[in-house]
Amino acid sequence: MAALPDAITNLIAALGKLPGIGPRSAERLALYLVQIESSAVRDLANTLVQARDKVKLCSICGALTEIEPCAVCSDTRRDGSVVCIVERPTDILSIEKMAGFRGKYHVLGGKISPLNGVEPEDLRIVELEQRLSREPIKELILALSTDVEGDATSFYLAKRWKDKGVKISRIAYGLPAGSGLEFADDITLSRALEGRRPIEQM
Amino acid sequence: MAALPDAITNLIAALGKLPGIGPRSAERLALYLVQIESSAVRDLANTLVQARDKVKLCSICGALTEIEPCAVCSDTRRDGSVVCIVERPTDILSIEKMAGFRGKYHVLGGKISPLNGVEPEDLRIVELEQRLSREPIKELILALSTDVEGDATSFYLAKRWKDKGVKISRIAYGLPAGSGLEFADDITLSRALEGRRPIEQM
Repeated sequence: MAALPDAITNLIAALGKLPGIGPRSAERLALYLVQIESSAVRDLANTLVQARDKVKLCSICGALTEIEPCAVCSDTRRDGSVVCIVERPTDILSIEKMAGFRGKYHVLGGKISPLNGVEPEDLRIVELEQRLSREPIKELILALSTDVEGDATSFYLAKRWKDKGVKISRIAYGLPAGSGLEFADDITLSRALEGRRPIEQM
Repeated sequence: MAALPDAITNLIAALGKLPGIGPRSAERLALYLVQIESSAVRDLANTLVQARDKVKLCSICGALTEIEPCAVCSDTRRDGSVVCIVERPTDILSIEKMAGFRGKYHVLGGKISPLNGVEPEDLRIVELEQRLSREPIKELILALSTDVEGDATSFYLAKRWKDKGVKISRIAYGLPAGSGLEFADDITLSRALEGRRPIEQM
């Protein structure tokens, strides 16, 4: 049996590591890519490297951005008294697509998960506490995943911040349980945000 | 609404042009790629460009190859008296995976399709005729798609070559009609190859 050229095999292996790309898709993509114009492949490779090089995390909120601070943090028309706390930078995009939230954001960088070795000190919690002492924040909206670890993280944070003098709420269970922000449609997300309730601070 | 950084939007647009990658997959891939190690992105980009630069089409049969001529054409243990004619370079891989064919190949580069502007002179037909006068070819096996255009191309070629003194056969209808080689499993493909029949040369 004549094997595939090594260069293609390597490309299939590299593409197969990407999320959502199975072995068949990787093969199909690789065979497509070695047969199109060489310049088109070069353009794709450049776009890839440039995107990675230009995109940084905002030093204030942790969002994906090309400028420092990011567009939301530097936008004076947005309501700086409300900060929505999310797990990942991409969760901000889900909320922004809904176009109903005018406050600011803070990316935690994950959720507390002892089984996966994620402790509170691995998250951007201290960074938020610094913002609390520096910015005129009156309300924190917790918009974490609605799974067990997301719930636990929300309760941990509500307890940790109960004496900070800010209102702490959580987006409502409009999201299907066990899911994350990235799977929610705009309406579900909008209702969840509107229906937020204060957390009992024991 | 805070827009995505331009670099990410560009990357999503570029990825969305690839086959089998829809808008959601493109966004997911792009957001993944701007958040992994910069070196990993560079490696992927290099693999991409290298694969495209190293892979050429064999000057004899038209297969994808890094060496010239390709591994099949330069393999003296293969039976040079039987040549299997396929539409695309990737069709060779489908047949090689089956591991039951020991002849050589010829890539047509498509099938006759007047509606899409593909005429006989756009295909590598003359190249095959040059091979017929140069190589000890005794049989040509037509392994084109089993759709109307593939059938028409097979009949056209059988008629064109009826006085060339070679046996011309076509792989059997073991493939589901209206489909192409890339969707066939090994057994179906193997039966189709075994059950090949001479074409009536009117």
